[in-house]
Amino acid sequence: MKLATLRLAGGTAAVRVNADNRTATVVVGHPDLSSLLDQADWRTIAAQADGATISLDDADYAPVVPRPGKIVCVGLNYATHIKEMGRELPQYPTLFAKWAEALTGPYDDVIVPEYAAAELDWEAELAFVIGRQAYQVPEAEAIDYIAGYSVINDYTMRDYQYRTLQWDQGKNFEKTSGFGPFLVTDYQLGTTIEARLDGEVMQHASTDDLVFTPAALVSYISHIVTLQPGDVVITGTTGGVGHARKPPRHIGNGQTVEVSIDGLGTVRNRTIVK
Amino acid sequence: MKLATLRLAGGTAAVRVNADNRTATVVVGHPDLSSLLDQADWRTIAAQADGATISLDDADYAPVVPRPGKIVCVGLNYATHIKEMGRELPQYPTLFAKWAEALTGPYDDVIVPEYAAAELDWEAELAFVIGRQAYQVPEAEAIDYIAGYSVINDYTMRDYQYRTLQWDQGKNFEKTSGFGPFLVTDYQLGTTIEARLDGEVMQHASTDDLVFTPAALVSYISHIVTLQPGDVVITGTTGGVGHARKPPRHIGNGQTVEVSIDGLGTVRNRTIVK
Repeated sequence: MKLATLRLAGGTAAVRVNADNRTATVVVGHPDLSSLLDQADWRTIAAQADGATISLDDADYAPVVPRPGKIVCVGLNYATHIKEMGRELPQYPTLFAKWAEALTGPYDDVIVPEYAAAELDWEAELAFVIGRQAYQVPEAEAIDYIAGYSVINDYTMRDYQYRTLQWDQGKNFEKTSGFGPFLVTDYQLGTTIEARLDGEVMQHASTDDLVFTPAALVSYISHIVTLQPGDVVITGTTGGVGHARKPPRHIGNGQTVEVSIDGLGTVRNRTIVK
Repeated sequence: MKLATLRLAGGTAAVRVNADNRTATVVVGHPDLSSLLDQADWRTIAAQADGATISLDDADYAPVVPRPGKIVCVGLNYATHIKEMGRELPQYPTLFAKWAEALTGPYDDVIVPEYAAAELDWEAELAFVIGRQAYQVPEAEAIDYIAGYSVINDYTMRDYQYRTLQWDQGKNFEKTSGFGPFLVTDYQLGTTIEARLDGEVMQHASTDDLVFTPAALVSYISHIVTLQPGDVVITGTTGGVGHARKPPRHIGNGQTVEVSIDGLGTVRNRTIVK
């Protein structure tokens, strides 16, 4: 099943994408997937949705889950990239935080204030969304707590990220992280993930290169804090970010970053500095 | 004005503490201060509240703002402590994140799973709560965006904090950070802040020793991301944490940590390992 949150004339709506991939059906009573995932029987509600049919041509996509209670970000999680940097594989996942206000729609322009525009960077990432409350979940059962998967650009202000030892302030600029377009419930790891800057391939890897899999992350995080339905975990990025290039590359005013994961889709956001 | 969130027989309620300091008046229609602060005219609503009168003897206090959309934590923010460690005062605030699930009531027992109980530590901190939406707010106007002040123990699992470079996983164990008991709208910086372990003073400072004041923090953070009504900022801790003592001290099973700020009150939480 493939779900999305669309901006319609009267507000947003949760929708189920139909088999033709060109139309979607409104899930009546749910303004977005955050609302839908709060229902224990969200799968059934979505599968049986019979609201209005909407064309996806020129649809206006909101962040796929627009109001997560928390977004847990993972750093340093692609094995090949860690090894090529000459580092040991980590024993524990590195966790940091993104706040919901940092999300934007998968095709929205990203508006960056001039004072924060010096070192803009992309990070192609696989995101997953929690489907039921998870606390102290064993890894073997963890997959049952995942509602589905999506694409995110963990858009980063490198100068802010490295102003202090803690990265969060470089990861949280208002409406910068394109997230969506779909929540895909039956995705399997092992497809290509890619970031492109104005069409030029910058990152290229496979999602089965993760050191800590989604199941491992649900288990690890849920032994710290409860993961709630609609919470989002973003699983880290691979080599090829602008900051690590020689010379470094940054996103300039007017440039577009695309992040694609085969089987999930593409987010495509143009940066406007002002 | 002094507000709180109480657990009553039928659920929680936002209350205004009365001048006698022994009774409170229910703010009808608001289950907690998160709900109340969502109203633009929350000050008037609270001041004019005329619900049931409740005795505060044996009252059961919930986290004072139980459902903040975000909790922004500040590190390294007490000047005297930074200087005594031989460090320069920082140019930028260090920001990290706590999730709402990490909060607990100001007098609740803190239940810590055995696997996380090796290096439990206290951090006495001044918290403030946002009263109206703040984005790109100049420092000179920032104070107007603060609803009030409270006390928090930024309870920390030091082993988890230092498992990786990012601290968030050591700051977020479920229901560990005692927060409250009151939201005080007219607090002035410059009173004593203290942490005590089973009555022994461990931290002692004045809240006017902050490098980045609440106003400076509202301005800085709001130039990154919107601060929403009910969001919480916790302003950092001073010297005397267990981890930095020689030899190190930790919170043991059955021990009680108190954090007090004169003019705001005390949180007092016993730790139970199980």
